[in-house]
Amino acid sequence: MLKLSYTPFALQFKHPFGLAYGTRTTTEVVFVRIECDGFVGYGEAALPPYLGETQTSVVEFLYKANTILKKYALPFLLEEIITAIDATAPNNNAAKACIDIALHDLLGKYVNKSVYSILNLEKPQPQNTSVTISIGDLNLIPEKLLELNDYHVLKIKLGNKNDRQIIECIRMHTDKPLVVDVNQGWTDKHVALEMIQWLHTQNVLFVEQPLPKDNYNDMVWLKERSPIATIADESMQRFSDMNEISDCFHGINLKLMKCTGLYEAVKIINYAKEKGLKINIGCMSESSCGIAAAAQLMQHADWIDLDGPLLVKNNPFGGINFTEGKLQLSNSTGTGATLADKNLEFIAL
Amino acid sequence: MLKLSYTPFALQFKHPFGLAYGTRTTTEVVFVRIECDGFVGYGEAALPPYLGETQTSVVEFLYKANTILKKYALPFLLEEIITAIDATAPNNNAAKACIDIALHDLLGKYVNKSVYSILNLEKPQPQNTSVTISIGDLNLIPEKLLELNDYHVLKIKLGNKNDRQIIECIRMHTDKPLVVDVNQGWTDKHVALEMIQWLHTQNVLFVEQPLPKDNYNDMVWLKERSPIATIADESMQRFSDMNEISDCFHGINLKLMKCTGLYEAVKIINYAKEKGLKINIGCMSESSCGIAAAAQLMQHADWIDLDGPLLVKNNPFGGINFTEGKLQLSNSTGTGATLADKNLEFIAL
Repeated sequence: MLKLSYTPFALQFKHPFGLAYGTRTTTEVVFVRIECDGFVGYGEAALPPYLGETQTSVVEFLYKANTILKKYALPFLLEEIITAIDATAPNNNAAKACIDIALHDLLGKYVNKSVYSILNLEKPQPQNTSVTISIGDLNLIPEKLLELNDYHVLKIKLGNKNDRQIIECIRMHTDKPLVVDVNQGWTDKHVALEMIQWLHTQNVLFVEQPLPKDNYNDMVWLKERSPIATIADESMQRFSDMNEISDCFHGINLKLMKCTGLYEAVKIINYAKEKGLKINIGCMSESSCGIAAAAQLMQHADWIDLDGPLLVKNNPFGGINFTEGKLQLSNSTGTGATLADKNLEFIAL
Repeated sequence: MLKLSYTPFALQFKHPFGLAYGTRTTTEVVFVRIECDGFVGYGEAALPPYLGETQTSVVEFLYKANTILKKYALPFLLEEIITAIDATAPNNNAAKACIDIALHDLLGKYVNKSVYSILNLEKPQPQNTSVTISIGDLNLIPEKLLELNDYHVLKIKLGNKNDRQIIECIRMHTDKPLVVDVNQGWTDKHVALEMIQWLHTQNVLFVEQPLPKDNYNDMVWLKERSPIATIADESMQRFSDMNEISDCFHGINLKLMKCTGLYEAVKIINYAKEKGLKINIGCMSESSCGIAAAAQLMQHADWIDLDGPLLVKNNPFGGINFTEGKLQLSNSTGTGATLADKNLEFIAL
């Protein structure tokens, strides 16, 4: 029988950051564990506060999912199990993802294969990941750049009044390629195009979600004119969104926590390739558990932005490393994630 | 890589039988073999002459299927592989079935599990199978009954002028339960109902395909009135037929060679259970290779009619037996089929 257990956990940020309502020092996740015949798979639900899922909602969903899981003696029918769990309730994408990840990890462990080989994906090679450089006091940028010295691509969040000033400040200190996440911050398509045209002169690889997520017509307009790839983030959650957004963007930001996990991620990748869409594989603030799962896909991505574990100081999982700025798997069974914190206690359902 | 090879084969009947156009002594099949990392799965396409597939058409289809198979290094993504192969050409149901069976057998061998456990099905227990008693000269019936002494359910083909006479003759010698296959032989629904009502007094368990396969309205009429289960055979091939026939029959005759194999058979079983339809698992003239695959499902059937290997004298596969009239698997890895004829030469694609 597939035996599910879970543990709510708070990941602590290395660098707490200020927000309008206070300082964020932690972010919530739920780790799950699925056991079968002595083999164990791990999964993670990362829960950024603005997406609506909480540790409580995840645990509630796990009870629903468990009614499906306990019907299965073996972990082979991933499609059937994942499809049935998806149908138990709408939304709950991160909760669905943690089960999907744990099931894939479990199957890999059970048959002593990597998830990427089971899924017939290319073997992940060490790959440069972008890392977010948080912009606060511009005077601190040289110090932050020094800390990120090993990394070859920097991610900058824009969408405020001083966008040009930020880029110009960074460009005084480094000519590393940048990726830009606007988080829906530019509301006028003409302003957006002008900014993108300027960013094009600044070695920017892509611009993520430049306009509000439902402005489909403006995004089509912008896609036709933008000299840099425009990438859907908030506009695209699951496979079912792909048809609508494929004319609006040059590519997608694929995150396991948005798309319910690896099973659907592979479908999205295949669809994106058919449509000629670029793929960035992204993440939330999450541990090496979720990142190891995402890394299974990375050979099929144009860019990866899997810096989650770099931002936290109490990562309870190992199995990946970031040598010389490149994400790589150090383990090739299951997702590769290994439980490092042996004191983590899982609560059985 | 999944390596496909095949061998066309003629199964020889123990009892050649006369037809309008001559005597049939053999029936054609194609055996396939899929190898991966030293593990081997076997499948079978049984090709009754009236269904349109031939050894040539199967081999042609195998070339198409191989373009899919060779993209995969491991046998885990059965759904994806089988769906892609199904899409390469319409029809070719037996050709599709032999690949489906070999893939399931291979996966079982690869992970050292039975196919029924991988598919989360109940463990097959020894179960009475019906066996066909061929009706020619009525005087020979006592002798034929003696030969089938071990078997507890007899299958009789009706649909001719002397239907009552045949049943009465059998009933003079045995009171074993019967199943009746009309093969679309009764064209008038009133005559069919009258016959069924009489058969109901003769310990008949079900009546298969009493009316022509497209007479849906008459079948609905008959279903409402029949005191015995009416079972769809020619009216039902694949999962996509299930919706249409579910109001027309009390149950279905599920054959791997009709429904393209185990992957779709499980879907059909789940649908049939939801709709309250009875399930008979049937077969063509086929070896223990195909029957072992069908036997994986038998715990989910109301009746089984898996007598194929009993009718042939050069069965190249082992792995099942018919002790005291009950079909049972003697091996629980993969489908359980084992290659007994080591001289069988497979041709690589």
